[in-house]
Parts: sequence; C-alpha cells; structure tokens
Amino acid sequence: MESAIDKHMQCPRTLSRRVADDYTPPFPMVVARAEQDLTQVVMAYLGVQYRGEENRAEALETLRHIVGTFDVEDGPGEWDATQHTDNSGYDNLIVVGYWRHPETYTSWAARPEVEGWWSSDDRLQGNVGVFREIVSPRADQFETLYAFTEGFPGVGAIMDGVSGEIEEHGYWGSARDRMPKSQTDWMSASGQLQTDGEKSGRVVVRAHDNICLIRSGQDWVDAGEAERKLYLEDVEPVLRAGMDFLRDNGEAIGCYSNRYVTYIDLDGNPIEKSYNIGHWRALDMLERWAESHPTHLRIFTKFFEVVESLEKLKLYHEVSTFDAADQYYEYVNCHPSTGMLRDATVPAAMA
Amino acid sequence: MESAIDKHMQCPRTLSRRVADDYTPPFPMVVARAEQDLTQVVMAYLGVQYRGEENRAEALETLRHIVGTFDVEDGPGEWDATQHTDNSGYDNLIVVGYWRHPETYTSWAARPEVEGWWSSDDRLQGNVGVFREIVSPRADQFETLYAFTEGFPGVGAIMDGVSGEIEEHGYWGSARDRMPKSQTDWMSASGQLQTDGEKSGRVVVRAHDNICLIRSGQDWVDAGEAERKLYLEDVEPVLRAGMDFLRDNGEAIGCYSNRYVTYIDLDGNPIEKSYNIGHWRALDMLERWAESHPTHLRIFTKFFEVVESLEKLKLYHEVSTFDAADQYYEYVNCHPSTGMLRDATVPAAMA
Repeated sequence: MESAIDKHMQCPRTLSRRVADDYTPPFPMVVARAEQDLTQVVMAYLGVQYRGEENRAEALETLRHIVGTFDVEDGPGEWDATQHTDNSGYDNLIVVGYWRHPETYTSWAARPEVEGWWSSDDRLQGNVGVFREIVSPRADQFETLYAFTEGFPGVGAIMDGVSGEIEEHGYWGSARDRMPKSQTDWMSASGQLQTDGEKSGRVVVRAHDNICLIRSGQDWVDAGEAERKLYLEDVEPVLRAGMDFLRDNGEAIGCYSNRYVTYIDLDGNPIEKSYNIGHWRALDMLERWAESHPTHLRIFTKFFEVVESLEKLKLYHEVSTFDAADQYYEYVNCHPSTGMLRDATVPAAMA
Repeated sequence: MESAIDKHMQCPRTLSRRVADDYTPPFPMVVARAEQDLTQVVMAYLGVQYRGEENRAEALETLRHIVGTFDVEDGPGEWDATQHTDNSGYDNLIVVGYWRHPETYTSWAARPEVEGWWSSDDRLQGNVGVFREIVSPRADQFETLYAFTEGFPGVGAIMDGVSGEIEEHGYWGSARDRMPKSQTDWMSASGQLQTDGEKSGRVVVRAHDNICLIRSGQDWVDAGEAERKLYLEDVEPVLRAGMDFLRDNGEAIGCYSNRYVTYIDLDGNPIEKSYNIGHWRALDMLERWAESHPTHLRIFTKFFEVVESLEKLKLYHEVSTFDAADQYYEYVNCHPSTGMLRDATVPAAMA
C-alpha cells in the first residue's frame, strides 16, 4: 500500500489527511504515476455546437478539421471525441486533447493553422458554434483514480506508469487527499466567473482561482453480456439521473457546467464509453454534492455494490484544480448557456 | 456562527478540520455548552435482562430497584429508562444515569446499597441478569448535536447551556471536528476487548483506548399528526433498518454492540421517544459505516429531506470516546452475546 501522492510531491503538511495512518481501504484502486519532468499538463476541450440534424454534417466536418490540426508537430499526446445533447436542445461534439507540457501546447496552439482558424471571423458565421476550454493543472493540482491498471484514458494516457494499491480512497474527502496541493492548501474559490460583454458572438469567460474539473468515466467495450447488462440496466440509469440533476440544477450548488458525454468516432458513431465533464466553483462544492446529495449517494452505493464483481467494465476519474491564469474559456457563435458562459456575470456597466 | 468546540477547549491544532474556514452548513444546528468546571462526566448504562413474559415483573422490579438507588445523595443529575429486544430473543431494560463529576459518581457507586447490591452473589441467581456499562469521557472526548435548542436529553441535561448556530455539521467527519480532542489526536483504537474467563456468571470485559459510543435520539412526543405520520411511516422504518443491520452485522465492521431502544416509564409502558446506543471499536469505524453503508446513507438522505420541515420532532446525538481506564463493562447472569461481551476475546489459556 502506498500514498496516492507520489514521493517526489510529498511535503511537510500544514493540513492533515482526513484519515489516520492505520486506515485501510475496502477494495484496491490505483492512480497514474508520472516522472518528475511532468510539472504541468494541458487539457484542451475543443467543442463544436449545432442544432438540428441538418447541421450535423457541417459539425462533424468541423470536428474532423480540429482533430486534423492535432496531426502536426506539438500535437496532443492523447485525445478522444464525444457527443452530448445539452438542456438547451443543442448537440455538442467535443474533442479533448492532453499535452504533457504547456510549452508543447503553446507551440501547437500558436501555429497559424490553429490560432488562425480559431480567431478567424469565419467562426462567427454559419450554422455551428465552436468553443475552447483550456485548462492547465500543475502536477500538484490534479489526481487520478482507476479501478484497472493499464490502458488509462484521459490524463493517465500521457503519464508514465501506474502506482500500486493506494491508501487514499473509499472515504469522502479522498479525492482531496490524493491531490498533492491539499497537503498545504484548501484550494478554496475566490472571485467570480466574468465576461467582458454580452454573451453572444465571441465571448471569453474570465476564470477565478481553484475552479475544479472532474472527468469521471465509464468504459464497457470489453464487458461480457452479464456485466454489460448490470452496467446498462442497473448502474447507468442511476448515473444518468445524477448527471442530469447537475446539468439542470448546478447553478445553485456551485456546479458551473455538467456534461455527460458519449465517445464517438469521427463519423459520429457512438462507442461504448462515456464520461462526465463537470466544472465546479471549487473542490469543496463538488465534495458537498457528492457526499450529501441523494442522486450522488445512489451512484456511490451502486458503485460499492458492484465494484467487487467488475471484470471488464472500466471506471475511473481525474480531478483537477487550476489557478485563474491557467484557464482559458472561449465561446464563438454558441448559445448563452454553453459551458462556463451560463454562470458568468456580465459587467454591471454592460448589463 | 461559532465553532462547536467551546473557546476554553480550543488549542493549537496539529490536525486540521475537514473543512475550510469559509464553510457554511446547509441548515442550523446547535451543541450543548458547559462551564469550565465540567472536566469529565459519567454515563452509567445499567441494564436488566430477561427472557419471556413470565419474568417481566421481576425485571421491572429490578429496574425500579436500580432507579430507587439514584434517589440518594450523589445520584445522577439526569436519567432515563428504556426497553429493547435483542437478537438473541432477550428483553433488556436499561436505565442510563449521567453524572457531572466522576467524584460524585464514585461516591454514589461506593455506597453499600449500590456496590453491595451489584456485587452480591444474589445477582448470579434468579431469572434476570444485570449489567453495568460505565463510561467517563473527559470534556474534550465528547460532542453533542441538536436540531432544537432547549430541554436536552442525555448528557446535555447535565450541562449548562446551549451554543449559537455551530459551523461543524452537515458534512462527513463533522462529529470528529466537533470533538475537542480531534484538534490534536486521531482517537484511534488500540488493543482488544478481553474477558478474564468464560462468558458466563459474572464477567468483566476489559476495554481498550478510544472505544466510541454514540447515543442518537428521536423524540416525537410533541409532534402533531402530520409530523408524527412523516416520522413513523417515512423516517422510522429507514432508521430501524440501519439499526437492525448494525445489531446483526456489526462484528465485521467494528460495531461491538448496537441497541435501538424505546423510552419506558417505570411500569414498562412505552413513551414516544427512542434512541440508539452504539458502541464502536473507534470513531473512524463509525465514520466509515455512516458515510458509506447504504442503510445509513438512506437514513442520512431521509434526514436531509425532512430536516427543514421538522417542527416538534426532536433529533439529537452525543458521541464520546474513552480511555481504556475510563470504561467498566460488567455482565452478571447475562447471555454471552450481551453488549460488549459478544466481541470480547477469551484468553487463549481459557478458550
């Protein structure tokens, strides 16, 4: 058994772990490990938004264009594409890319075929919108958790290995305890989400410190019939109810945006993997919802019920927090409730 | 808003609270307050055990005898009596007395009519058993929590007042955070429950450090019809299921004993108040069950559902931990699964 906080990131604590040294978790889980040269990563959620079947072809073409720009020098080390319908009735295709170093991302993003395309006024026209949600947690600002030990999706794919069984899981607050920064920092929110003007056209949302992002995933590609049935009939509906609750009721509890997305191929065909992308004002608000809301407690107890019988179903999550300066949210030709736009305040002089 | 830890018990922390200073709870709760002269209390659970209606009169007579001994100098400042049927099919009448100072308890317990009666070989005869579970938490080893502000039952009745709204509630781990000792101590278990011999006749169970006791209570005496119906039909069955689970399955998860009891008058007539008496190997095991087991999560979400509509229903708890030396468990003529007897180990030479 080892700490989820890798040796080179352990430091003298000013804040204690929630559990004593003799705590032992009820079942095994692991985290991804990285060499010390990984000091900060970039997660770029690049979205295409459309409404109505008649615009789907254009949206998919746009998605393929974005993915095409990955295929050059300094592109991401890992990416995947998803689809979801939001509660304004729009469909959204998102491709997320992961970079192991901010410098590599910056080089890529500055290339004319990337920056030129995103900043072009052409993006303000036509039947699809696009958005960029770019976040860069330092190595001490994110944590992972997997119920399997290889082939990690998401940020784990650009890391270097896997831990042994880790200590910090199986209790509320363990995500915080897995994050190295929690040794000395509460990671509390300060400030507000703000726009510089109206929520139409091209809008940049200015972030605040310690916004928290959770990607929480499910993969039943390799599941046999019984396990697939258990997942789809018993687990998934409970998960969906919780995710729908957050999508529709997040504003009051500090959840800025919640998207329950399905993997797709580049022709838009669904793949048997899904994940949730949840943005929170800060980790503590995610904690409060997770540990006290009936919709999440049902997910949690369902997971505990089935975890020991899982064979091929892969469950995982990654949770990150960010400095204000390490976030960039831009929406172009999107509806005003898209992503971080919904809860952003418009400056008083403009409102 | 104020800390549940009273000013005179606050000290420099070596262990942090689970939540940051900006945490605000979702609804108001209060704790009992005591003057600084309260340094340690005594909680004496005095039980009478019998089986079958034919022995009920003798058991009630014994209960009345015990309560009669309270009515002398140095008796308890507060007491109440309860009944419950255990899962061995025995009925148990327990009177619990609370003393504000250990010295007063010691004086009372040493009186010939008290100590003489308990130590008499007459207790080994007849159709009823008796037991004593005496625990003495220091002021920094217990905490209380009430959803009402006066007329406190249990330990609150021997204290001196009430706090304003307190900060530390509404999240898992808040009971620990309300306990002053948690500022510097994990209160982890060490050692085992042990008997000196066989579990029959007169048996003393030797305790270990940091055994944890929760008394968790419900009082619907003053509830109107709608609230009574809500409690009895909607809340109580969920509560009972959780308490039955612990009674029957506690050994594997560190719950030494769990009794869901109903108040009675001294003729044995039920009163519309109940509480649970749960003994745990340590607070962390109580925490793990409470925050992760479906039966308790159902109680918890039910409580959250109804808490804001409560008017007359009174809910409360008190949680204490004890040094080994501040506990005394004695069973006379009781069945071998009574209370702390069940999980006590018999010395190898005797087994």
